[in-house]
Amino acid sequence: MNSELMMNLALELAQNGRGYTSPNPMVGAVVVRDGKIVGKGWHKAYGQAHAEVNAIDDAGDLAKGADLYVTLEPCNHYGKTPPCTEKILASGIRRVFVAMDDPNPGVKGGGNAYLRSCGIEVISGICEAQAKKLNEVFIKYTSTKRPFVIVKCAATLDGRIATKTGDSKWVSNEESRKFVHHLRHAADAIMVGIGTIKVDNPMLTTRLEGTTGKDPKRIILDSRLSISEDATVLNLNSASETILVTGESVSADKLLQINDKGAKIIQLPLKDGRIDLNLLMSELGKLRITSLLIEGGGTVIASALKAKIVDKVMFCYAPKIMGGDDGVPICKGAGPELMSDSIRVKNIEVRRFGDDVMIEGYL
Amino acid sequence: MNSELMMNLALELAQNGRGYTSPNPMVGAVVVRDGKIVGKGWHKAYGQAHAEVNAIDDAGDLAKGADLYVTLEPCNHYGKTPPCTEKILASGIRRVFVAMDDPNPGVKGGGNAYLRSCGIEVISGICEAQAKKLNEVFIKYTSTKRPFVIVKCAATLDGRIATKTGDSKWVSNEESRKFVHHLRHAADAIMVGIGTIKVDNPMLTTRLEGTTGKDPKRIILDSRLSISEDATVLNLNSASETILVTGESVSADKLLQINDKGAKIIQLPLKDGRIDLNLLMSELGKLRITSLLIEGGGTVIASALKAKIVDKVMFCYAPKIMGGDDGVPICKGAGPELMSDSIRVKNIEVRRFGDDVMIEGYL
Repeated sequence: MNSELMMNLALELAQNGRGYTSPNPMVGAVVVRDGKIVGKGWHKAYGQAHAEVNAIDDAGDLAKGADLYVTLEPCNHYGKTPPCTEKILASGIRRVFVAMDDPNPGVKGGGNAYLRSCGIEVISGICEAQAKKLNEVFIKYTSTKRPFVIVKCAATLDGRIATKTGDSKWVSNEESRKFVHHLRHAADAIMVGIGTIKVDNPMLTTRLEGTTGKDPKRIILDSRLSISEDATVLNLNSASETILVTGESVSADKLLQINDKGAKIIQLPLKDGRIDLNLLMSELGKLRITSLLIEGGGTVIASALKAKIVDKVMFCYAPKIMGGDDGVPICKGAGPELMSDSIRVKNIEVRRFGDDVMIEGYL
Repeated sequence: MNSELMMNLALELAQNGRGYTSPNPMVGAVVVRDGKIVGKGWHKAYGQAHAEVNAIDDAGDLAKGADLYVTLEPCNHYGKTPPCTEKILASGIRRVFVAMDDPNPGVKGGGNAYLRSCGIEVISGICEAQAKKLNEVFIKYTSTKRPFVIVKCAATLDGRIATKTGDSKWVSNEESRKFVHHLRHAADAIMVGIGTIKVDNPMLTTRLEGTTGKDPKRIILDSRLSISEDATVLNLNSASETILVTGESVSADKLLQINDKGAKIIQLPLKDGRIDLNLLMSELGKLRITSLLIEGGGTVIASALKAKIVDKVMFCYAPKIMGGDDGVPICKGAGPELMSDSIRVKNIEVRRFGDDVMIEGYL
């Protein structure tokens, strides 16, 4: 029996929870007895049972003497549900294979150590890299209390996200655009600048094919609160709220208007006339926003990069060339004098959506 | 015996001639008898023996009754060497497998038809797509008498080829830069604008590791002949010439100076103050330049795209972000108003050089 194979199955199961578990991690588990899978489970949604519990319940009596594969160290404390360690002990599970330790500073090592102290064999570190990638959001959030930030854009091969007239319909193909809705579904929040609202007037909702998605919270950077009451994001039928981020000296009347529209407002002191994105990230962390998708435009992308709040970029290149320098660039504003002072991107991965090419990497 | 397998071997052999066969195509051939390869050959250099001759000579008496696999329809005329069809007939070869017909309008179908009329079985179209890709330069040149044009650039993920100060050392990594020297080796000529000469003062020569490469001819677009006598391209020890392309009303003294430096000059009527690239391509075709590598900068790339002389783009993205809009863009000048009016790129392929990602495609 191959333990990597079983753990990969658990990792796949974990992904079924994508979009629903925040601020918890995605976790999957399988129960294996005599080389056969006798139980499967995953953490389906925040507040609901953990993966281990679901897998052990699925196995029933067959869990006795079996092995448990779980993608994250079992919890050893009372949260929304009782500790998984007790469930494991009660089930008669003999061995526990764990992909990664719990990164939560208060929890680290607790579950594995407790199980061992109770005589359970615990083997940890199976498929650890994959597990860490799966829960990159959870790891960032638990260790910093700030959201994991993804910058996503769609550009021509020569790096333009719109023409000089602002036309961006469409840069990327249908397949890429569908993928973006999966990103939105997975994210706790999506953020754009007021410029994007004024030019594109987008919905910023999740539209998945054949299944209902979860809308991310919509965060609009609008330092002077100049958004129109008629903006689509203020007039949506969505379970997720729209949050306007603005400065401290804006019109009280306008604040009331926005409030009447049902939108939330975050007022922050401005820094050089702009929203201080580092301050904002801390605020969003307090609101339990663990992941943030930045979809542009060029000003917000460049500001986020300069503020060093970005964890990951996902740049999608469509098979077309604008052929001039007057279109909207991926990044606006001042750049460095030296090439060596540009921002490094690590662990590059490439994926294709038809003839669109997405390059992703970490900062 | 798998005929695709044998043809793939012939295609691989053909590539040994890369950089040396122009204006001829790259051609490879294998002789197969009783399922065994008994002869191999390729066209090594312009003026030398064709692939079929080399493969048949390599097989010797074993060619009698054997099969010949050749990547291009055998020639049926006297050029620098006698017709390959006669060599095939004299050798006793029984069957001939051909990847692609000769695209030369005057030659098309001639070799295959002649062999068939002499009783040889000819099977054509084996690995045709690969053969056509291998000789995309030859196909373009023979059918249009103009060079196959590749635009190559190295940019940051946000589409900048240099910083605002012109610093471009280095955008891409060593592996990518090595690949560029293979492109130069393969190309008959390389072309840049005078801006690149003034900012970077490049050699534009081929530097391969462990083997001697062939320098492409260096073509400099310099409408007002403002190049400095000290420019590196005018003071090189290279077997290939430097060609200055300039307007008709430039200083006679400067023309003499350049001439004294050993550089060739092409004077063309200007169009809107610039070199007419379409006219230039016809001139380069007359000089038997079958392939042209454009390495920038942004003005030349955009002009070439607008003049519709480009056949292929090879854009290399390095894992870094400039983060501003003041760096040098891939394309300069005016772009379209609508995204749908951008230039389409087809048959996208992606390759990686470490963390650099190259996206290539055809126009």
